[in-house]
Amino acid sequence: MAMQFLSDNAAMVHPAVWAAMQAADAPDAPYDGDYWSRALDERFSTLFERPCAVLWVATGTAANCLALATMVPPHGGVICHREAHIEMDEGGAPGFFTHGAKLLLADGAGAKLTGAAIRAVLDPIRKDVHQVQPHAVSITQASEYGLTYKPDELAEIAAVSRETGLKLHVDGARFANAVASLNREPYAACAGADVLSFGCVKNGGMSAEAIVFFDESLADVARYRRKRAGHLQSKGRFLAAQILAMLDGDLWLANARAANQAAQELAAAAGQRLLYPVEANEIFLNLTPAEREALRAQGFTFYDWGVDAARLVTAWNSAPGHVTALARAIAAL
Amino acid sequence: MAMQFLSDNAAMVHPAVWAAMQAADAPDAPYDGDYWSRALDERFSTLFERPCAVLWVATGTAANCLALATMVPPHGGVICHREAHIEMDEGGAPGFFTHGAKLLLADGAGAKLTGAAIRAVLDPIRKDVHQVQPHAVSITQASEYGLTYKPDELAEIAAVSRETGLKLHVDGARFANAVASLNREPYAACAGADVLSFGCVKNGGMSAEAIVFFDESLADVARYRRKRAGHLQSKGRFLAAQILAMLDGDLWLANARAANQAAQELAAAAGQRLLYPVEANEIFLNLTPAEREALRAQGFTFYDWGVDAARLVTAWNSAPGHVTALARAIAAL
Amino acid sequence: MAMQFLSDNAAMVHPAVWAAMQAADAPDAPYDGDYWSRALDERFSTLFERPCAVLWVATGTAANCLALATMVPPHGGVICHREAHIEMDEGGAPGFFTHGAKLLLADGAGAKLTGAAIRAVLDPIRKDVHQVQPHAVSITQASEYGLTYKPDELAEIAAVSRETGLKLHVDGARFANAVASLNREPYAACAGADVLSFGCVKNGGMSAEAIVFFDESLADVARYRRKRAGHLQSKGRFLAAQILAMLDGDLWLANARAANQAAQELAAAAGQRLLYPVEANEIFLNLTPAEREALRAQGFTFYDWGVDAARLVTAWNSAPGHVTALARAIAAL
Amino acid sequence: MAMQFLSDNAAMVHPAVWAAMQAADAPDAPYDGDYWSRALDERFSTLFERPCAVLWVATGTAANCLALATMVPPHGGVICHREAHIEMDEGGAPGFFTHGAKLLLADGAGAKLTGAAIRAVLDPIRKDVHQVQPHAVSITQASEYGLTYKPDELAEIAAVSRETGLKLHVDGARFANAVASLNREPYAACAGADVLSFGCVKNGGMSAEAIVFFDESLADVARYRRKRAGHLQSKGRFLAAQILAMLDGDLWLANARAANQAAQELAAAAGQRLLYPVEANEIFLNLTPAEREALRAQGFTFYDWGVDAARLVTAWNSAPGHVTALARAIAAL
Repeated sequence: MAMQFLSDNAAMVHPAVWAAMQAADAPDAPYDGDYWSRALDERFSTLFERPCAVLWVATGTAANCLALATMVPPHGGVICHREAHIEMDEGGAPGFFTHGAKLLLADGAGAKLTGAAIRAVLDPIRKDVHQVQPHAVSITQASEYGLTYKPDELAEIAAVSRETGLKLHVDGARFANAVASLNREPYAACAGADVLSFGCVKNGGMSAEAIVFFDESLADVARYRRKRAGHLQSKGRFLAAQILAMLDGDLWLANARAANQAAQELAAAAGQRLLYPVEANEIFLNLTPAEREALRAQGFTFYDWGVDAARLVTAWNSAPGHVTALARAIAAL
Repeated sequence: MAMQFLSDNAAMVHPAVWAAMQAADAPDAPYDGDYWSRALDERFSTLFERPCAVLWVATGTAANCLALATMVPPHGGVICHREAHIEMDEGGAPGFFTHGAKLLLADGAGAKLTGAAIRAVLDPIRKDVHQVQPHAVSITQASEYGLTYKPDELAEIAAVSRETGLKLHVDGARFANAVASLNREPYAACAGADVLSFGCVKNGGMSAEAIVFFDESLADVARYRRKRAGHLQSKGRFLAAQILAMLDGDLWLANARAANQAAQELAAAAGQRLLYPVEANEIFLNLTPAEREALRAQGFTFYDWGVDAARLVTAWNSAPGHVTALARAIAAL
Repeated sequence: MAMQFLSDNAAMVHPAVWAAMQAADAPDAPYDGDYWSRALDERFSTLFERPCAVLWVATGTAANCLALATMVPPHGGVICHREAHIEMDEGGAPGFFTHGAKLLLADGAGAKLTGAAIRAVLDPIRKDVHQVQPHAVSITQASEYGLTYKPDELAEIAAVSRETGLKLHVDGARFANAVASLNREPYAACAGADVLSFGCVKNGGMSAEAIVFFDESLADVARYRRKRAGHLQSKGRFLAAQILAMLDGDLWLANARAANQAAQELAAAAGQRLLYPVEANEIFLNLTPAEREALRAQGFTFYDWGVDAARLVTAWNSAPGHVTALARAIAAL
Repeated sequence: MAMQFLSDNAAMVHPAVWAAMQAADAPDAPYDGDYWSRALDERFSTLFERPCAVLWVATGTAANCLALATMVPPHGGVICHREAHIEMDEGGAPGFFTHGAKLLLADGAGAKLTGAAIRAVLDPIRKDVHQVQPHAVSITQASEYGLTYKPDELAEIAAVSRETGLKLHVDGARFANAVASLNREPYAACAGADVLSFGCVKNGGMSAEAIVFFDESLADVARYRRKRAGHLQSKGRFLAAQILAMLDGDLWLANARAANQAAQELAAAAGQRLLYPVEANEIFLNLTPAEREALRAQGFTFYDWGVDAARLVTAWNSAPGHVTALARAIAAL
């Protein structure tokens, strides 16, 4: 049987999530009128120590794009990294949900933006109707290369956004891994954001992500747009229950710590091979085709990353034996 | 505790569906590359005795609107009943998924279309660019008033659609109830359709509907659009497993028969009060405000339907004791 | 040669409009930075005795739909008459410009709305995300049947709109005919409107309509959307010059009066045949097929209106001889 | 008075265009049913020596984006140069007309694409639903830097497009300048294109561009979409007449030759300062801020191009005296 390091996106569902879903299998109001859905605002407000309005959806793509659709008009633009998930891997969903708004691509090491990178996109844009005007910035915490934004980096981005009149979105498909890695209170990992996509599916959930609106005025529009996008499930209590289960007893952080720790074990083994520091649960390392072949022959699965590298992803349930075996196999190459 | 006849849309999840979901909690490919998702085409092809391509999505709205988006261009129109779910209750989702195509509203008793009703919409439309040209017809089986299309009625609609170059979509949110009621092979209940939205959520499922493409050429476009709409779940195996569980041993029909039978018991009690024949699992009956109050005082929940009527909906798990109690209470009014 | 009463939409261009266009054939800034375009705001503010921001576009469809796009979000709706031009004759353009907003159809004699008609659309709409919520009302002055809204009728519509939080749009493709007919100051014919589509093409212009934003905050968004819709012409001075020529010496009213007067001559001849009072430049009258044939045999052109009626339209340049000849021919039937 | 080298987009209208417009001021059918509009297909079929269907619109943005909307679905992409007009200067119009299709940006010297540049965009795109799939290529003839595609360069691009299943669009805002420069039959300058935006406004027209569909099956959809975009003018004969006037006696080529010749005079004066060879009517040359200031002090107007360069554009009516004066002034710097 394969030892799986392909992705965390198809990992198994945590037993506590299952239990919460089964507890939600009781008669209640449809859509988001049920007990569980109505608990979300308060639970997240407590978690983030400030008021917020929270909507569940089934996928990270829906979370990101519904968020963006509340922040940018159809004729506007969103500044993001050119390797951001919304640019590379969402099948054009941002264009669909925003009715054609443009992603304006910025550069930055490790798929991270900086204030300077944002300004480098902004500055050459003429302030006329012939060019698409940016209305928002979207960053990913942790980034596509598994790097975290530190509080001072976030502060700089938030400041530039505020000064230039841009809303700030944080794609937190792996927000738990970032918070666990930063080892700070949760809000520190997204301070300044107007909206956060708070991921659960990659972290032990089944089919629920939370859109956290720190700018609560945006949530009302999102409610209409969620329905209009076919994302308002009639048995929404099963999504809310998943999310609440992740928050109970900080399961989200425990799961993320497990994945991060497995990643650290692999990082230590990879040593000089690492393309990026390992700060969350993704490891990018130099591996020749022959080396990759050797690892696969031992039963490990993972993605190629260009010609001479690979991407390994750990998950909340990465088997310790598999992790140790892979670490040894890498070290032995 | 309330005796619930509000809707089947928030009913509990069938144990066999739970079991199938848990069996699917194993490592497999993400999205729709897994064992369960890949089994759908064949299972439905067997069920309908002809080739079809099948995609899962989480909601009926997504199923209907993704289907329509493959059948009508943004500048076209879809003929449907003016009380159809896509017109009345999907928050404008058809306009979103189709990029602004227009619903062209037809009349018909019991929210059912006829060939004549379709032609009555078609005939006054000038064949020029100033008027929106119809490209598809959408009907609901069973209809919004719980009526079924009989095979000869379907044949007429299919013939008119074919003659006038329109694609045919069937919204089957309660397709199971219709098939159980008609007591014919499944295809007889949607013959001539290019695409069928095959509902599960109202019939014991949790969060999965099947879009059945009898015109398989439409399915490829739908795959891209499903992703673009944020409806491609990474752990899609849990949706596919729900659908397969519904088909196993014809659970879908058993559940629908249970709901239909409960509805018949209520219909018999309602007698002359019925607004429509009861052919599926919805009962519309005359009830004065005082009568409704009297029933509610006994613990029954249901929706008002205008000033002097009510809508009762039975579900796969309507408790026989509740059904009998309600039937008696209605008879006793 | 035909004596033309088909429509005013293809009538000849007034000599003063030609002259103004030729005077604008001088080097100036592109788009709307030129002398003529920059004069529009002030000229219309004077005309309407209140501040307004004005954009030119080439067609009434573009004017109406750009206006609506600033007033309603993609998930919202616009209440209009079911025979309104935006519903019947713009090829789905409202759905395109608004990204799928829904037209919510109201009834009313002579294609006119009333406060009650608006409330009849509003009242049954549940205030939930499953139903499209209205954000604006659109009326046509003069209406599709050539009727004008009187100041008290407008006041009622404006009041209902204000009370229910709806923006108000006036489609003024034949606004000049309405103002000339009402014989009041121009603003009286659109009082309460947030945006007016001020038509010129049907009234002696060539290719320019003015969008008049009384709510000036909407104009900035419209500027971006005009460009995005390909309606920002680089030699925009030729459009602005047409509009200014219409205002100079109240040519717009003189032209409208000429058309209205011709219509009155025909109305007098039609007598009991009239389907609607003639208040602008359209005449709808009962004419059997044989009668229509008889008129056509004499060289008159016009549109059938159903089986037993016809529509005649006069224009600024309807030849007096043709008008008198047609009046006599009708009287002689 | 200024000597204008800012752009050709606001230049005066050629007398022959005026004359043709005035000749079209006669009663005729509205929209595109008139004599002039109906002549376009045949005239262009003759010009290009093959069947084509032709639609007029008012702007190059509308021409380009309506063309693209017939070639790419909302979930698809269009490969173009990262400095293409559709990417840089159309205010997001491609996203509007295509309902959110993505521009996929390629590199290339002088804003020109090559087969290799197209393949460099295509090759890394995974053939799955997570990434936007290209459906078309758009090139600009002459390019944004005034360079022409030679027949062999076009042949290569057409071959790559065909092999990879992509439609080919040519933005010909300055197609006349390209054809005049190449000194070949017109079709040689766009061979392999499915659709050509044939520009007139920059070349002596007022408000008309032609969309030439060599793939005639695309034209029917474009007719509906033109109306839906508010671009079907009721007095369309005035647009058609402009276009026909440009073709009469090859006025389009005479005008383009005049502009190109003026550009050559400036190019000769610029010598080593040129950033690109001058092949059409745009000149990009190194000029320090002080040098630009000196030229402007002599009455010449033009755009800065970054810090140390300027863009000069000649037009059909560039005054020979102004051109010679500018050439001398440049040489004298």
